[in-house]
Amino acid sequence: MAALAPAVAAIRVAVRRALVGLPTAGPVLVACSGGADSLALAAATAFVAPRLGRPAGLVTVDHGLQAGSAERAAAVARWAEETGFAPVESVRVRVAGRPGGPEGAAREARYQALAEAGRRYGASALLTGHTRDDQAETVLLALARGSGPRGLAGMPPRRDLSGVPLLRPFLDVSREQTRRACTVLGFTPWEDPHNVDPSYARARVRADVLPALVAALGPAVLENLARTARLVAADTTALDALAAAALAEARVPTDGRAGTGGTTGDRPAPGGLVVARVPTDGRAGTGGTTGDRPAPGGLVVAVLAGLAPALRTRVLHAWARELGAPAAALSHRHVAALDALVTDWRGQGAVYLPGALRVTRQDGLLVPV
Amino acid sequence: MAALAPAVAAIRVAVRRALVGLPTAGPVLVACSGGADSLALAAATAFVAPRLGRPAGLVTVDHGLQAGSAERAAAVARWAEETGFAPVESVRVRVAGRPGGPEGAAREARYQALAEAGRRYGASALLTGHTRDDQAETVLLALARGSGPRGLAGMPPRRDLSGVPLLRPFLDVSREQTRRACTVLGFTPWEDPHNVDPSYARARVRADVLPALVAALGPAVLENLARTARLVAADTTALDALAAAALAEARVPTDGRAGTGGTTGDRPAPGGLVVARVPTDGRAGTGGTTGDRPAPGGLVVAVLAGLAPALRTRVLHAWARELGAPAAALSHRHVAALDALVTDWRGQGAVYLPGALRVTRQDGLLVPV
Repeated sequence: MAALAPAVAAIRVAVRRALVGLPTAGPVLVACSGGADSLALAAATAFVAPRLGRPAGLVTVDHGLQAGSAERAAAVARWAEETGFAPVESVRVRVAGRPGGPEGAAREARYQALAEAGRRYGASALLTGHTRDDQAETVLLALARGSGPRGLAGMPPRRDLSGVPLLRPFLDVSREQTRRACTVLGFTPWEDPHNVDPSYARARVRADVLPALVAALGPAVLENLARTARLVAADTTALDALAAAALAEARVPTDGRAGTGGTTGDRPAPGGLVVARVPTDGRAGTGGTTGDRPAPGGLVVAVLAGLAPALRTRVLHAWARELGAPAAALSHRHVAALDALVTDWRGQGAVYLPGALRVTRQDGLLVPV
Repeated sequence: MAALAPAVAAIRVAVRRALVGLPTAGPVLVACSGGADSLALAAATAFVAPRLGRPAGLVTVDHGLQAGSAERAAAVARWAEETGFAPVESVRVRVAGRPGGPEGAAREARYQALAEAGRRYGASALLTGHTRDDQAETVLLALARGSGPRGLAGMPPRRDLSGVPLLRPFLDVSREQTRRACTVLGFTPWEDPHNVDPSYARARVRADVLPALVAALGPAVLENLARTARLVAADTTALDALAAAALAEARVPTDGRAGTGGTTGDRPAPGGLVVARVPTDGRAGTGGTTGDRPAPGGLVVAVLAGLAPALRTRVLHAWARELGAPAAALSHRHVAALDALVTDWRGQGAVYLPGALRVTRQDGLLVPV
């Protein structure tokens, strides 16, 4: 009896690890384009899921961007049904007219369709076939775009997609392993022409940058990039949690308990009248009743000034978002201008933020005006 | 009258920014190999320092690794004296026999010689000519080696070198700008053959990887890499400070104040007898008298368990170093094994650390045995 090919063993182990211990009972849904990565994912799931007593479905998304895409989606769906997946869905999405570049628009349309399918079938998880190579490309692209630690953290192995857990079992599996597994299993994967289309930044990174990196520094580079992404992700998670706590501490209460100073922790509030002085942009006293967001009161400069810069910029970014600044338009320059109100105060005027917002420093507070 | 060339203006502005506000009065010492970067640095310093009323010296290091290196060092020193630098030193260092690869050994020898010169002359600062391109190479090398956030933070613009401030004024200046400045000023920089020697990892990154990255994603890549490095550095600084505080909080006091529990903050100690039970590896009661390091008592598991993973791994790493594990040999695998004593406790045995150390979990504590 022939031994199980290592590539096939690797993809099955990876899927088993992801599926063991899923908290809810619904089917897992595999997102499958027909490419080597997601075909290997589907094959491994078809093997593993029944052995864990869990139904497995499959969703293939037709972006309608290439000639023959409908036929390919139909072929993937047919294969999935023959293989025993249920439910099987082929979803046609409309990419044109969405904001962002072509890559971003296609990705957004795809994830939206996946989330809808996940909710429709009460899926316990959605699975995508992103590999270690995809992760390395993502990290390099983030680095090259200057997206900072958040982008550098890469794709998480698990995240929430509009209420459905999205899992990426293959982040430690190489693209080459998924190809080998397909060969061993007798599949002929679809080769997405976008993957080699030099008009896509990711395709250029894949074709030119990563090979240069591997040639210069050896094949361990891909695993090392993935490892760095994991470490940066852990740092980002820790700092985000600390920043959320620091934001709560820096807030001026707007619920009428003026003068208690109780919510700013053990730091001295800058003068006993602070709370009474805070401009409340017309929503004074309603704190907590205007929705699930805290009322946008002010932040105490003295508390902000005591934070490490990495925490303070996170707090200011989160606060600006809370005030209504759109994430896409809020740049590090805006946050730096807010930061200057705290750390480089020379009586300067209001800081303008996207979303027609203004923030000024007044009586030891940052306040929206 | 001809306008000042932009490249010359850029290098002078960068040096002025670095030198304004230096706290002590000694000379600044430029480290100069004769290459374009450090020659531009020397030229800008020769212009700026006298205008700030500050003496400027120059140190050139002969690594003795290449034919003609002594002549080159002599030529740089001669030029420096003619230009008005004082003091001027040409230092011959011995690279062979040092640990690490050839690049690391040469760097270590060079920095040691610079620090010694800095102390000898009571320098207010040492200046090196590292550019934005060097920073991008450093970040890419760190990423590719999986060195994690610490490596990814790149070279700091300012750090302490054995008691002397080391400044890098050109981290926002491109290598091309330093070349142009040299051309405008009529200098012919030395081209270090190591920079194009493919046996050096950095030279391979410089020759192949960065050009591929710039070709794929545009020239903004270099500034973006530098920006990412700054953001990651800020995150690392914040987490390191928080980890130092968390380590102090997790310590079991060994100074005889057993049972007070006062040093573990407001978290409940795991049982009132903890302090009395802690094994003290023969140094009980001497806490604080064995040198400038705290006595290596135990850490309270309950405190460690409450930390974010990014903080806990930093605390465990710092503690292992404090116990005597050599930094170079202490890997993330060792730290992960310590972490498992906290987060994945199944009664496992002691964790072996480099430096012939063992750590075990006992009565709710991590203790060296």
